[in-house]
Amino acid sequence: MATGKINVSVENIFPLIKKFLYSDHEIFLRELVSNATDATLKLKHLTSIGEAKVEYGNPMIEVKIDKEAKKLHILDQGLGMTAEEVEKYINQVAFSGAEEFLEKYKDSAKDSGIIGHFGLGFYSAFMVAEKVEIITKSHKNEPAAHWICDGSPEFTLETHSKTERGTEIILHIAEDSVEFLEETKIRELLTKYNKFMPVPIKFGTKKEALPKPEDAGEDYKTEYIDVDNIINNPNPAWTKQPNDLSEEDYKNFYRELYPMQFDEPLFNIHLNVDYPFNLTGILYFPKLDSNLQIQKDKIQLYQNQVFVTDNVEGIVPEFLMMLKGVVDSPDIPLNVSRSYLQADGNVKKISNYITRKVSDKLKSLFNENREDFEKKWNDIKIVLEYGMLSEPKFYEKAGDFVLYPTTDDKYYTLTELKEDLKDNQTDKNGKLVVLYASNKETQHSYIAEANAKGYKVLVLDSPIVSHLIQKLEADNENITFVRVDADHIDKLIQKEDEAISKLSDEEKEKLKLAIEAVIPKENYTVQMEALDSNASPFIITQPEFMRRMKEMSATGGGGMFGMGNLPDMYNLVVNTNSEFATSILNSNEDAQKELVKQALDIAKLSQGLLKGEELTAFVKRSFDTLK
Amino acid sequence: MATGKINVSVENIFPLIKKFLYSDHEIFLRELVSNATDATLKLKHLTSIGEAKVEYGNPMIEVKIDKEAKKLHILDQGLGMTAEEVEKYINQVAFSGAEEFLEKYKDSAKDSGIIGHFGLGFYSAFMVAEKVEIITKSHKNEPAAHWICDGSPEFTLETHSKTERGTEIILHIAEDSVEFLEETKIRELLTKYNKFMPVPIKFGTKKEALPKPEDAGEDYKTEYIDVDNIINNPNPAWTKQPNDLSEEDYKNFYRELYPMQFDEPLFNIHLNVDYPFNLTGILYFPKLDSNLQIQKDKIQLYQNQVFVTDNVEGIVPEFLMMLKGVVDSPDIPLNVSRSYLQADGNVKKISNYITRKVSDKLKSLFNENREDFEKKWNDIKIVLEYGMLSEPKFYEKAGDFVLYPTTDDKYYTLTELKEDLKDNQTDKNGKLVVLYASNKETQHSYIAEANAKGYKVLVLDSPIVSHLIQKLEADNENITFVRVDADHIDKLIQKEDEAISKLSDEEKEKLKLAIEAVIPKENYTVQMEALDSNASPFIITQPEFMRRMKEMSATGGGGMFGMGNLPDMYNLVVNTNSEFATSILNSNEDAQKELVKQALDIAKLSQGLLKGEELTAFVKRSFDTLK
Repeated sequence: MATGKINVSVENIFPLIKKFLYSDHEIFLRELVSNATDATLKLKHLTSIGEAKVEYGNPMIEVKIDKEAKKLHILDQGLGMTAEEVEKYINQVAFSGAEEFLEKYKDSAKDSGIIGHFGLGFYSAFMVAEKVEIITKSHKNEPAAHWICDGSPEFTLETHSKTERGTEIILHIAEDSVEFLEETKIRELLTKYNKFMPVPIKFGTKKEALPKPEDAGEDYKTEYIDVDNIINNPNPAWTKQPNDLSEEDYKNFYRELYPMQFDEPLFNIHLNVDYPFNLTGILYFPKLDSNLQIQKDKIQLYQNQVFVTDNVEGIVPEFLMMLKGVVDSPDIPLNVSRSYLQADGNVKKISNYITRKVSDKLKSLFNENREDFEKKWNDIKIVLEYGMLSEPKFYEKAGDFVLYPTTDDKYYTLTELKEDLKDNQTDKNGKLVVLYASNKETQHSYIAEANAKGYKVLVLDSPIVSHLIQKLEADNENITFVRVDADHIDKLIQKEDEAISKLSDEEKEKLKLAIEAVIPKENYTVQMEALDSNASPFIITQPEFMRRMKEMSATGGGGMFGMGNLPDMYNLVVNTNSEFATSILNSNEDAQKELVKQALDIAKLSQGLLKGEELTAFVKRSFDTLK
Repeated sequence: MATGKINVSVENIFPLIKKFLYSDHEIFLRELVSNATDATLKLKHLTSIGEAKVEYGNPMIEVKIDKEAKKLHILDQGLGMTAEEVEKYINQVAFSGAEEFLEKYKDSAKDSGIIGHFGLGFYSAFMVAEKVEIITKSHKNEPAAHWICDGSPEFTLETHSKTERGTEIILHIAEDSVEFLEETKIRELLTKYNKFMPVPIKFGTKKEALPKPEDAGEDYKTEYIDVDNIINNPNPAWTKQPNDLSEEDYKNFYRELYPMQFDEPLFNIHLNVDYPFNLTGILYFPKLDSNLQIQKDKIQLYQNQVFVTDNVEGIVPEFLMMLKGVVDSPDIPLNVSRSYLQADGNVKKISNYITRKVSDKLKSLFNENREDFEKKWNDIKIVLEYGMLSEPKFYEKAGDFVLYPTTDDKYYTLTELKEDLKDNQTDKNGKLVVLYASNKETQHSYIAEANAKGYKVLVLDSPIVSHLIQKLEADNENITFVRVDADHIDKLIQKEDEAISKLSDEEKEKLKLAIEAVIPKENYTVQMEALDSNASPFIITQPEFMRRMKEMSATGGGGMFGMGNLPDMYNLVVNTNSEFATSILNSNEDAQKELVKQALDIAKLSQGLLKGEELTAFVKRSFDTLK
């Protein structure tokens, strides 16, 4: 039996690292600037605990393009490396320097914000460079080192005359990557990935006006000087304490995050937790566009102030994906699949924490200024209603702040609604009937009839509302939701009082036959009702159950299989007590036909069902009566 | 100056490979079955060229679960390895065996379908296993080898008593991966990744009925035997030549691909190219659901019959993402980002090839059976119209088969349309006016008026149609599209003949003032026209330009900035030759008011603008006239 050690062949793994380590080549800049930041923060930490006997000062990182020589430089004023350290940290691929450092200075390093993956990240430089140089001078009293490698595993290492502390990385950009020599490209990448990194990053200079001297004459011309152009904000709002931030600060940060966006956020939620996981961030409720699709992918994910992605699927609960803002957590595993993320316990905890913070915030907003909360309701309801359906933990808390608006713009919580409606809208079987409309305009005549009886009608117009009320009914005993056009109002909320019919049963039967002779049976079921004589003679209604199942089936998940494809079914409610009913009975057959047809057309108008050729004919008849 | 070789430290890179090589742990099974397939196909190749002196036979791959011992076995009857080869291929990570093999047998190996990434893929086993064994017997006359490794870089290697040719991989599944000991899980993975791999894969057995013996008596009971349960189809349709496949074969393959789908595809496109890149596949045009969103991510991407992903973004042109089917190409770089894919020249060529094949197929379908093509038009138009807008290469070819249906269900190509309309629908300025409706029902009265003049009206109802006609107008001189309700029909297509007015200018002015006194100015511009005396007295129109810009702005990309938020603007066309006009002039002020209001309501009905309280009141008035 032989034993041995698996050997990783450098010649073969090197191209693999170059090709596959990161799927996006542009990531190299993020990695190198991260390393520079890392080296700077390490020095800060060592000076603060007295291990490095140098002045920390006000170090910055600089990125420079030398287009002619096809070089890109990244310079820092951090820790630096001795030749020995270059050997150790650079020549040994996958030797994670940061890990070793963290291990050594465990307790004191905790809060210094050191970025993880030192080591491998450096090699991402070879994704875009044919040759890479490192010129580095350690803070220790040793000569600078100069390392050169052309992407083959061979390198050279010699001393260098550099005297200032810190590291300079020089990338000799490869032929196929010349885009990374463009100023606009590099600025774009720095803005995308490094906009909020904790050490100032200089990229070129900008002109700044000098203050006008006090003794300047009339013909004074403003003078400009070149100043460093710092592209990042090293102290973004989310890294601060909520107590130190005003409403204006939050709004300013929103503008900083989305400079091309002109809306104002409705409110924000500051996330801040360090146990059992570390997470900071600020989420904003934006005014939701009608086009919800566009809103996705707007929350940005950072790790220690380094931008990672704007795809937070799996990390932020799905119903909150429409929000905007920033989440920063070193505890989210990167480079793993979404399905892995969803299974990861830590990630699930993060998602739950965010859900809880959002519901807490909503509750406090509601309690502190209900009027303002009601004003914002229309902009936030989709998110909240979707959350009630998709997150049980959110649903549990939603009762405290989710609102149900009525057609006359009053807003109730479910508890208030039950209390308010119970006297007038409890039917003879003891069920509380909640009336709702999906559209104030198209269902106006039905709403008007309900209001005339003193009933309240909710406006529930989200696309997922049929799912929501299905859930509310299941979870609240003795309450039923019906759309206001689901039947005649007297049938929707049945009271004890018996309606008195003007017609005899015989007359009713005769009337019914006369009507059924004209009405298309495949679309309408005729329903004879003794209603108030002033109520409309014909009313078209659409029974709640079928309609709701169809809607649920159409918006996905729920309803009954195949229901979505069934034709719409309507009832034609005939008011046997109306004058019109009597007129029909007293007319001859031809006149009956014409009367019923015209009445059906008018009833169809109320339901938005008169269309096409029928509508054109109706309009023509109506114009003719005007002559 | 020192020189040296970069050293990859195994202790550190091993966990990295285990963790990050693949984001989805389940991939390990795909990789191991791929290796087994690879080893089998290699043997087939070597026997076919006489280099291996053994019988190829009918080898299969077997996957077995030993739940009690927490082991998963993958067995093949392929090439096998000698101890020396294990040293070389297994102990040297990232030494790509397949590459070396391909290099050696370059020409003869081309068509043997060998799968790529041998070597690294094997180590994915450690993502789920705490210990891995290889028992392998080469086709060469050498003793079998037994390799054991517990995930640390240490391994043992000894001889083994195995006598049958081939390799067995034994995974000792780790505590956190016991899901991979579940039969349902393994079956799911084999079905997902290996359903069409080229060597039969056995997973367990199934019962099969024995044929009834001829001399079986009345009380014969069917007997069953256990047979191998083969989970894959080694020869899927896309690997065959189009000439060898019938329509039924294509439909059967569709059902094989989507067993849970009950629709029939409209038609298919067989992709088959081997230069300058290798690509095969079959795309299907499905019947499009109203919910386009759900259709996405349905084309499956394979490499040499191994499933890779169902996200083909960047590979298949965006407008074809709604199709279904399979694309198989070894030339698509995996494991890279979408933005990289889009920049990759090869991928761009693939995308262009697919576009060209699709347009060729559409053209031939159109030419071969136009009637059938017209029947399918409604199901395919969204894809084609979107393609015209997004793919210039597709737009160039689209003239040959893109159709424009009329309200009376005739279908024209653009060329035919121009020819057919030019006599009747060229206006006095020599412009060809193409009338269209977005909805046959709601615009019925306008369509009827146009038809009465002998004009044809197209039905263009896709959500992106405003963008499309904008493009068609830009590319076709002297042609203009107007929606049929954009103005009175006589104004939409202006002819030479001057309309004769019954009213004097003075009367017209008086009439206009009377009307403007009642009509809300902020919504309507009153436009006096001497039309046919039988035409409607009031017609509400919506000017083309504004409406189209608003629509374009609403569907994104195009239109004018901010137009989407402007209110709808309408014209009220007053027919000064109508009897109604005379009636108004002859009425007193109160009667005028009432008449104009009622006429406006009726005109609004035609445009679907009478809503809410106004509609309720109109309905009530209409019912009252019936009493």
